[in-house]
Amino acid sequence: MTEPTDKTRASRRKFLVGAAGLAAVASRPALADPKNLPPNVADWTHTLGEAVGTHGYGSPSKYEKNVVRRTVSWLTATPESSVSFTPLHELDGIITPNGLCFERHHGGIAEIDPNDYRLMLHGLVDKPLVFTLEDLKRLPRVNRIHFLECAANSGMEWRGAQLNGCQYTHGMVHCVQYTGVPLKLLLEQAGVKANGKWIMAEGGDAAGMNRSIPMAKALDDCLVAYRMNGEMLRPEQGYPVRLVVPGWEGNVWVKWLRRLKVGDQPWYTREETGKYTDLLENGKARKFTFEMDPKSVITSPSPQAPLKRKGFTVISGLAWSGRGKVARVDVSLDGGRNWRTARIDGPVFDKACVRFYAEIEWNGEPLLLQSRAIDDTGYVQPSKNDLRKIRGVNSIYHNNGIQTWSLKADGEVENVEVG
Amino acid sequence: MTEPTDKTRASRRKFLVGAAGLAAVASRPALADPKNLPPNVADWTHTLGEAVGTHGYGSPSKYEKNVVRRTVSWLTATPESSVSFTPLHELDGIITPNGLCFERHHGGIAEIDPNDYRLMLHGLVDKPLVFTLEDLKRLPRVNRIHFLECAANSGMEWRGAQLNGCQYTHGMVHCVQYTGVPLKLLLEQAGVKANGKWIMAEGGDAAGMNRSIPMAKALDDCLVAYRMNGEMLRPEQGYPVRLVVPGWEGNVWVKWLRRLKVGDQPWYTREETGKYTDLLENGKARKFTFEMDPKSVITSPSPQAPLKRKGFTVISGLAWSGRGKVARVDVSLDGGRNWRTARIDGPVFDKACVRFYAEIEWNGEPLLLQSRAIDDTGYVQPSKNDLRKIRGVNSIYHNNGIQTWSLKADGEVENVEVG
Repeated sequence: MTEPTDKTRASRRKFLVGAAGLAAVASRPALADPKNLPPNVADWTHTLGEAVGTHGYGSPSKYEKNVVRRTVSWLTATPESSVSFTPLHELDGIITPNGLCFERHHGGIAEIDPNDYRLMLHGLVDKPLVFTLEDLKRLPRVNRIHFLECAANSGMEWRGAQLNGCQYTHGMVHCVQYTGVPLKLLLEQAGVKANGKWIMAEGGDAAGMNRSIPMAKALDDCLVAYRMNGEMLRPEQGYPVRLVVPGWEGNVWVKWLRRLKVGDQPWYTREETGKYTDLLENGKARKFTFEMDPKSVITSPSPQAPLKRKGFTVISGLAWSGRGKVARVDVSLDGGRNWRTARIDGPVFDKACVRFYAEIEWNGEPLLLQSRAIDDTGYVQPSKNDLRKIRGVNSIYHNNGIQTWSLKADGEVENVEVG
Repeated sequence: MTEPTDKTRASRRKFLVGAAGLAAVASRPALADPKNLPPNVADWTHTLGEAVGTHGYGSPSKYEKNVVRRTVSWLTATPESSVSFTPLHELDGIITPNGLCFERHHGGIAEIDPNDYRLMLHGLVDKPLVFTLEDLKRLPRVNRIHFLECAANSGMEWRGAQLNGCQYTHGMVHCVQYTGVPLKLLLEQAGVKANGKWIMAEGGDAAGMNRSIPMAKALDDCLVAYRMNGEMLRPEQGYPVRLVVPGWEGNVWVKWLRRLKVGDQPWYTREETGKYTDLLENGKARKFTFEMDPKSVITSPSPQAPLKRKGFTVISGLAWSGRGKVARVDVSLDGGRNWRTARIDGPVFDKACVRFYAEIEWNGEPLLLQSRAIDDTGYVQPSKNDLRKIRGVNSIYHNNGIQTWSLKADGEVENVEVG
């Protein structure tokens, strides 16, 4: 949209000072008295802990009970067609634990016996096929780390700052490693006819969720996936099989995948006409807005993760792009007037989340924190107002505008609008 | 140890045939009757599923109850000083879900209130320091994907094929993304004195587990980590803080980290003298065998994951090296006489697990399945017998010998010795 500015070369050094140097000044850990060893032999050292193997499948510490997905009761008409949000403010790195991946269902979580599971591939193919789960597991598979973002993520923010916490404003995104069969392989087995240009993916849930996907994408990087982060898909993520459509809106990543039909044109299903289209100011709707544009959010500090102390601290956030790799992330402390390059740490994959950091010395002054992602196509994440000028505010989808957090003198953080 | 042989160039093509081509022949999914849509509208499509947000923190499908860590009751004297094993045969990709990461404790799982947690850094430093968890969380952090392997992984196999399943023979390994502070940063804050050449890491568990680590490693790539796969460490993995010592034996990755003391020589603690040393045939012991040599295992098929059908199938496994990156993995079907290069799929990180595959057409003939890892230093994973010639069989540690699975005509798999 716009080229990133870089007016502040002089101040960059002050901002992104060598981490080691600043840390020495600012972390201010207590000086230790060697005669008084902390934790001064704590109770937990005096007694044997819980036995090994008590939990065949483990769970987080009891002190982390607040690290959970959360719902918003007023958002949808029924709890079966609703959303739970990833607690982004409580996470770091790029991998989302499976138990914290956001949910968006249209008819509740289908409970599928893997022995009864079937996937049908039919339509404009030479040989319609039915796969059992065992059939799929015997085929060549690949492992890919990708983000998945709901098209409605940040949707409430089109009409101004609405929700006070990145879990709610940006928590319909997660990032895991998928294992699955390239969709191309299944299509080659069935033999796509010359006029087969689209594919319909249909879920086995009560909503029968279905979407049209162009054949070029199906043959490119889509997966028929059955694992996430090594283990089988979670029930709420489509157990036992879902479609993975890298970089595209979550709605087309059809869960509990039941059927793939090849056709010569899109089906114009409910979820790609009445829903998941962006109604513009002129009354027309954008059609097939599959790709998720570059986006980022500061996860800490944020309204649910206020700053507890002055001094050295780390601004941390997530960035992603459905168009390719994140090339750079900028951070602003003054609501977008000046930008500085953040430190991306950890692996950078195609169509995956990256983790960024910016170390600062905070002396209690109010700040307007922003981040913006730039991907390897050169796209720069725009301001919300720049987006509104083009798209209006009718839609609840595809809001990748820059998020602003107002950091107050007391360390509390609020969701605000600027400019 | 030995150079990898490559006598079988001619047969390689036959072995690693184009996945798409073979799959078309061998997967044999059922032909679909379009009038009889599978799953013929299953029950799960007729009824609303479970509501969104029912589980703030999710769990696997009820159909995956067998995917759990397992213990062996006869292995240790008490359940507090014991082992639970990762179900490698039920996983794919490279990320281990936190709930399935193996456990090895010496005094049970310390239960630490994060508000009372303290880490002391003292000894030969200019300024002894005490860090709270909040102190650590405010410091610059990094994200690294690494394997963690217990030195005793595969230890029972020194004296011949003992355990029938890769969960038991190789399940003391896992691989996650850690988030933590570089240990170097803490040492710089405290100021290491010129004669500070070693560091002792001590746990806050009832065992007071402690180990000596050379300063060069501490300043290289060690982390004081508090997160795994995005969320806070699990209790059994050292909540709230553990040491990450990439590529080195798990025992030095001290959990529930309480104290780091800088000294001028190693401490020769119990766990690096009476334990975690390799007693050779001549009565001498190898000293400070920190680094985990290249290793691999076929996870499927394996004794707990037999082959259910003839035809096209995928051999899958894990490889890792504490010396650097895995450069190549070879697979043999005939007990090591002929080797073919496997397909590594997914990211390859330094000192991390990689996933490898080899697609084969299996017609029911008995096979002797092996894999061997080669890392970027040129080290080739040796046979168990080659290792025994040098090390004898007194030790239970550092067995990185090649594992052999005997695939029978009925698809069952056994742990066997060859040659």
